[in-house]
Amino acid sequence: MLSRQKTRTYEILEKASADDRTSRLVDSFIMVLIVLNVVMVVLETVPSLAARYANFFEVCEVFSVSVFTVEYLLRLWTSTADPRYSRPVTGQIKYAFTPMALVDLIAILPFYLPMVISVDLRVLRAMRLMRLLRLFKLARYSKSMQTLGSVLKDKSSELYVTMFVLLIMLVIASSLMYFAEHEVQREAFPSIPGAMWWGIVTLTTVGYGDVYPVTPLGKVLGAIIALLGIGMFALPAGILGSGFAEEIERRKEGQVLCPHCGKDIHTPSKEG
Amino acid sequence: MLSRQKTRTYEILEKASADDRTSRLVDSFIMVLIVLNVVMVVLETVPSLAARYANFFEVCEVFSVSVFTVEYLLRLWTSTADPRYSRPVTGQIKYAFTPMALVDLIAILPFYLPMVISVDLRVLRAMRLMRLLRLFKLARYSKSMQTLGSVLKDKSSELYVTMFVLLIMLVIASSLMYFAEHEVQREAFPSIPGAMWWGIVTLTTVGYGDVYPVTPLGKVLGAIIALLGIGMFALPAGILGSGFAEEIERRKEGQVLCPHCGKDIHTPSKEG
Amino acid sequence: MLSRQKTRTYEILEKASADDRTSRLVDSFIMVLIVLNVVMVVLETVPSLAARYANFFEVCEVFSVSVFTVEYLLRLWTSTADPRYSRPVTGQIKYAFTPMALVDLIAILPFYLPMVISVDLRVLRAMRLMRLLRLFKLARYSKSMQTLGSVLKDKSSELYVTMFVLLIMLVIASSLMYFAEHEVQREAFPSIPGAMWWGIVTLTTVGYGDVYPVTPLGKVLGAIIALLGIGMFALPAGILGSGFAEEIERRKEGQVLCPHCGKDIHTPSKEG
Amino acid sequence: MLSRQKTRTYEILEKASADDRTSRLVDSFIMVLIVLNVVMVVLETVPSLAARYANFFEVCEVFSVSVFTVEYLLRLWTSTADPRYSRPVTGQIKYAFTPMALVDLIAILPFYLPMVISVDLRVLRAMRLMRLLRLFKLARYSKSMQTLGSVLKDKSSELYVTMFVLLIMLVIASSLMYFAEHEVQREAFPSIPGAMWWGIVTLTTVGYGDVYPVTPLGKVLGAIIALLGIGMFALPAGILGSGFAEEIERRKEGQVLCPHCGKDIHTPSKEG
Repeated sequence: MLSRQKTRTYEILEKASADDRTSRLVDSFIMVLIVLNVVMVVLETVPSLAARYANFFEVCEVFSVSVFTVEYLLRLWTSTADPRYSRPVTGQIKYAFTPMALVDLIAILPFYLPMVISVDLRVLRAMRLMRLLRLFKLARYSKSMQTLGSVLKDKSSELYVTMFVLLIMLVIASSLMYFAEHEVQREAFPSIPGAMWWGIVTLTTVGYGDVYPVTPLGKVLGAIIALLGIGMFALPAGILGSGFAEEIERRKEGQVLCPHCGKDIHTPSKEG
Repeated sequence: MLSRQKTRTYEILEKASADDRTSRLVDSFIMVLIVLNVVMVVLETVPSLAARYANFFEVCEVFSVSVFTVEYLLRLWTSTADPRYSRPVTGQIKYAFTPMALVDLIAILPFYLPMVISVDLRVLRAMRLMRLLRLFKLARYSKSMQTLGSVLKDKSSELYVTMFVLLIMLVIASSLMYFAEHEVQREAFPSIPGAMWWGIVTLTTVGYGDVYPVTPLGKVLGAIIALLGIGMFALPAGILGSGFAEEIERRKEGQVLCPHCGKDIHTPSKEG
Repeated sequence: MLSRQKTRTYEILEKASADDRTSRLVDSFIMVLIVLNVVMVVLETVPSLAARYANFFEVCEVFSVSVFTVEYLLRLWTSTADPRYSRPVTGQIKYAFTPMALVDLIAILPFYLPMVISVDLRVLRAMRLMRLLRLFKLARYSKSMQTLGSVLKDKSSELYVTMFVLLIMLVIASSLMYFAEHEVQREAFPSIPGAMWWGIVTLTTVGYGDVYPVTPLGKVLGAIIALLGIGMFALPAGILGSGFAEEIERRKEGQVLCPHCGKDIHTPSKEG
Repeated sequence: MLSRQKTRTYEILEKASADDRTSRLVDSFIMVLIVLNVVMVVLETVPSLAARYANFFEVCEVFSVSVFTVEYLLRLWTSTADPRYSRPVTGQIKYAFTPMALVDLIAILPFYLPMVISVDLRVLRAMRLMRLLRLFKLARYSKSMQTLGSVLKDKSSELYVTMFVLLIMLVIASSLMYFAEHEVQREAFPSIPGAMWWGIVTLTTVGYGDVYPVTPLGKVLGAIIALLGIGMFALPAGILGSGFAEEIERRKEGQVLCPHCGKDIHTPSKEG
């Protein structure tokens, strides 16, 4: 049997029901802290701010990590309140390996690791950026990110098909361009993998202008590739777009969807 | 009881009914004046035109401000003819703080303010641009702008969700690129907020070419970010696009929409 | 009463019915000649080709103009076979001022005009390009161009609304950018009309990279404008796209559409 | 009568039925080999890798070509097991000229040809790239590529119409720009075909920035062309996008489509 304290702590940490004020306050507090942390990681890279507010950033980091550490330990301790992880020790170990628990752990590790092992400066800098993973802690609370997740899941087969076709097109386009331009522009088209940078930049219509064909053959090929390829590279956008529209429509209408086929499960209608 | 004069003035200033010729004439006159004003503000910044037609621009400005001032005062005076602001003085004060009344006021202020307080040249130039706010006075008459407004309102929840997701993607993309390129291109990727300029320019596919990755890691990351991110950044366009299509469809068909849920309210059909 | 010759000539020149072989041959001949003419105008501007095949181009031009002149005169002569222009002389004059007849005339004028009046070189060059108007002669035969025409007509109200909104957005975006960047980049942002070049290049996501903001304020404004504006500038594409889809669908299904409201006129169904 | 061996070989080479393990193994083996071959062709162009793994690439190539040669010969030999090519010799010749058989042949030719005839270096390099055609061998197995194929077939009439309109727009836009910019930028706009490179790069919104208008007339024309043209050039993307969506929907729902009109053939429903 679970202690009342543990059950209450579990309730507070999990997504709040609308009428549990304490739980909602804790949720809001953690969300605000996450957002502030991300803002902090971003601003810390501005040299002038980093120099001026070094102490402030340090204090914020210690405070955040303390809160997130306590949160992590409490979540671990109370995980047995969840029926899925109810067995005393093995349940908690099982919980510790769920994606969200791992995110929670990785989000605080960059703080503790340099205390245990010595790391060089470059690794340390990468580690500081890893604090951005705290963003994914938001996934517990943010409907937007859950929507994005379910759209990606829902449309995964379409995205897989188009990604495969895009990859083939990219290989063909880059190979043709490599063949046409390699002799003249060895720097810009050094190899087929190198020419793929041109391929991506062109087919996504970004077009920085750092590499572009200069030979007549290259320009003709480039023109044809652009005309035909851009339609294909716009497909993922279209797929995601209609997926989002459908998902938001669903949520608005409060439909229940079958978890297996993604179709709407109509409640038996009175006319039937 | 309202004087007949006030009621008539109110009628004339408000959007005209189809058979009120005087009112329609006044509406057209003000619309044309607004458009001319905007054209004038735009052309005034061309040095050669500014030098040559300085007097003409000056006269136009004085004339426009006179008309808009009279219009503003008349609207203020007659606002009590609107049942919402019918109480003599408090109603007029309440009206003065409605968005449209504020726009009317701000549109004429840049003319009067330099007479009262002394302002330096830079502020004066900013003020001249503020005259562009006169554009929003068009909102009273222009169906296009009303359509835009209702689309934005209608789709606000979708736009909010995608904007939030885009922001998270932008932070992640810019941070990754900062990590990959900062060492090599300190000018182009000075900090994460600085790298966001690259992020925006790439993910919107503008691609000026002022900043782009040069390291192999940066190019691989850039390619992946471009492929995945562009789909997301095209979402607001898709949402607005379908919103516009729906809105125009609605207007064409003269449907009545429920103000709460945005669904069509069908008039009871004869077949039912 | 019309001579049999005139009626037959009229039949041959007008779009052929499927079983009139002579007429179909003449149509095909003229279409091929038009396409060859356009290819010729385009290739003539390549200096190496112009030098080498000067005589060939000259001969082709004389031949084409002869054919088009005969075609024009025959169409003018036979126009009285069309009930709309049946009155002997006034009908032919009326026909001469229809858009298609004017296109036919303008397409041959650049050849005859230099014989009559003396023109300087630059005007002559412009005139040579005017021969491209022969393209529009295709509109008589090409279904593609007719489809494009009916889509533009069908969606004109939507396009008008969005164009107006885009113009307002362009003015606002360019004015803001002018305010932010004018002091630092006087060449790139010389005036608001000058800044509109930046606005168009950015909001259509072309992004040549000849003008872009460099000040922090300009970059922040540019980022916001890009994020919000691109959605709007993608609207005409969406409107045209769905218009095309509908138009092609219609043609496939052979539906009859009401010329007034654009809705499908269903033939009375048997279930009714 | 076919030998049992031939029939079995035919079964193994053709797309496997779900419960034929040998056949599925062979299919997977060939698919993996194709993908590895493409990766190899791509990586071979990287000088450092080409130098280091020359022997490995050589061995792989010999092995692949051996397998593909055996595969080709077996397919040719067993083609008589297919009712369409059942007549002993003429059937095999007929099969040898099907597109897929030609692809199989061309995919191995670059290996054998230099043994027979002497070829210069440039041709040899082109030939090595021709090995990329092995990609199309995937079409036998890959659902993605079959989906792409049927979308292109399904939407061919729409794509044809838009391509024609795009071509006309490109000619007009490039001619106008040539007229406006040729005098000032002879290098960037040397002729109308040369100006078409600007046209493609602008209308697809790639915008490398290697050519752009600099004269006021050119900028105004460029702005108008960009605003009007981009919508048109986004059409193929929209057509392909909706085609893909429909195709995937169909496959999901297991509908049977009429091969003539592309419409769904409903199996007679029980409610009817």
